[in-house]
Amino acid sequence: MIYDVIIVGGGPAGMSAAIYASRSKLRVLLVEKKYCGGQIISSMFIDNYPGFYNGIIGSDLAINFEKHVKKFGVEIVYDEIIKVENNLTNKIFSSNFNYFSKTVIIATGTCVKKMNILGEEKFIGNGISFCVTCDANFYNNKTVVVVGNNDNTINGAMYLSKFAKTVNIVYSKNKFNISKELYKKICLCYNISIIYNSMPYEVIGDIIIKNIVIKNIYTNEKTVLKTDGIFVISDLKPNVFYINNIKCNKNGYIIADKNMNTSVKSIFACGDVIEKQLRQIVTAVSDGAIAAINAKRYIDKIK
Amino acid sequence: MIYDVIIVGGGPAGMSAAIYASRSKLRVLLVEKKYCGGQIISSMFIDNYPGFYNGIIGSDLAINFEKHVKKFGVEIVYDEIIKVENNLTNKIFSSNFNYFSKTVIIATGTCVKKMNILGEEKFIGNGISFCVTCDANFYNNKTVVVVGNNDNTINGAMYLSKFAKTVNIVYSKNKFNISKELYKKICLCYNISIIYNSMPYEVIGDIIIKNIVIKNIYTNEKTVLKTDGIFVISDLKPNVFYINNIKCNKNGYIIADKNMNTSVKSIFACGDVIEKQLRQIVTAVSDGAIAAINAKRYIDKIK
Repeated sequence: MIYDVIIVGGGPAGMSAAIYASRSKLRVLLVEKKYCGGQIISSMFIDNYPGFYNGIIGSDLAINFEKHVKKFGVEIVYDEIIKVENNLTNKIFSSNFNYFSKTVIIATGTCVKKMNILGEEKFIGNGISFCVTCDANFYNNKTVVVVGNNDNTINGAMYLSKFAKTVNIVYSKNKFNISKELYKKICLCYNISIIYNSMPYEVIGDIIIKNIVIKNIYTNEKTVLKTDGIFVISDLKPNVFYINNIKCNKNGYIIADKNMNTSVKSIFACGDVIEKQLRQIVTAVSDGAIAAINAKRYIDKIK
Repeated sequence: MIYDVIIVGGGPAGMSAAIYASRSKLRVLLVEKKYCGGQIISSMFIDNYPGFYNGIIGSDLAINFEKHVKKFGVEIVYDEIIKVENNLTNKIFSSNFNYFSKTVIIATGTCVKKMNILGEEKFIGNGISFCVTCDANFYNNKTVVVVGNNDNTINGAMYLSKFAKTVNIVYSKNKFNISKELYKKICLCYNISIIYNSMPYEVIGDIIIKNIVIKNIYTNEKTVLKTDGIFVISDLKPNVFYINNIKCNKNGYIIADKNMNTSVKSIFACGDVIEKQLRQIVTAVSDGAIAAINAKRYIDKIK
């Protein structure tokens, strides 16, 4: 069986691609590693996907997306893809099966870099956030801790400082490796404090987060900080497996043009896995639709 | 009062921009000419906005969007903007008022070219469609009429021929001004008929469309065609008013880069009004979010 399009990844980008591809009468297979939804599954509350004006629990939105995909008869299999070989048709390998298709849409997203500390798992999406744009608004006049060690960490903390009463940055070195200009700006934010030479050690709370314990990396001394939320702002890692001849940028993101074409003609990419500025549900569903429409155009052309 | 951002246009792009801008703590004014929702208001049923898996009536989705915008405290005024002058701040003119802002987001969309015939208004969004990608799926095994006179008309008819049992193109000339290649392709579609030298004259139906009356432009002879739906596929017209120094393409669409920057630094544009490939709700809400985030970045930079 040769599918018209195989979509790898069942997050918002992949599911939107599936909706658009199946509505265009393409024969679609969606391959998802674990469960559909992608990163939205771990969001307790999504308040910025237009149309759901009361906000929606991430896993509920994921279920809505999945129902939407299934309504149009898309076949979904749960399998982990490890390689794509591109020739006249595309051959897509998991460890125990090969799939074949005219086009492939890569929508595998990114994985976030967790803190890997005690108490963390329980509060992911419910007190621990990896997305400032998504969740800053929930912390008006509250106290938050920011964990991370790059320019994005600082920019994220400054963004949060417009919402939160107090922002504490927990930083593992003794000074920032950032531009003077950025450093000057952060010094002007009266409600940001920087705690140098420290690492997160434990998250404490019951239903909600109450404290984060941090540890000085030289003295091992522990300090308990009161906090309403923790933002972990470090580099994301794109989930890219082996695809022959596909071009990625230096951080590993797939390079796609505005029509979601990659450097390989029959392979399209969309959502968080591509090089882009804004990683949000709205941009993912848009990318997915564009990828599907262009996969369809490609198939019509090679007929 | 100088707003951080004035959004002109209350369709999906403008409303998404308003959600993202207000959640970023910008002072936002949304100016809409008539009523929020844009073109989705005239869609009877929207089946491809991911998350609404049962589909949703266009005007209901518009109301959801508007509630979402209002929830974040966005100020909405109903006024028609006729000019934007860009200097240190932007001065935005309606016929009876001037507004001022640091940034402007243009989200004025396009207007469709109606047939302007008897019986048309009643069935717009409910039997008469302007979007093949959106609505082809509703006409599986049905009979449709396509009205229009350009390449898009032909491409749209071919797309529809995969869904509908019969596609009749009503065409006002005696031969197509299209490429040989495209002509060959359309001749191969066994379920497409072309009715030359004819214009639509009247739409007939009660709750649903039953017939379209067409008229031969030479003989004035009228013919009644049975049809389940009519697709009007002609050029859209972007709703652009005077903005000094803004670059548009030859068809009048505003040229914006991937971050929704226009040729004027403090003016962003998003949604159907910009030069783009795929005009859909998903792409509009994505554009709007990107425009808002970049307006915020611009404001942070000029501080």
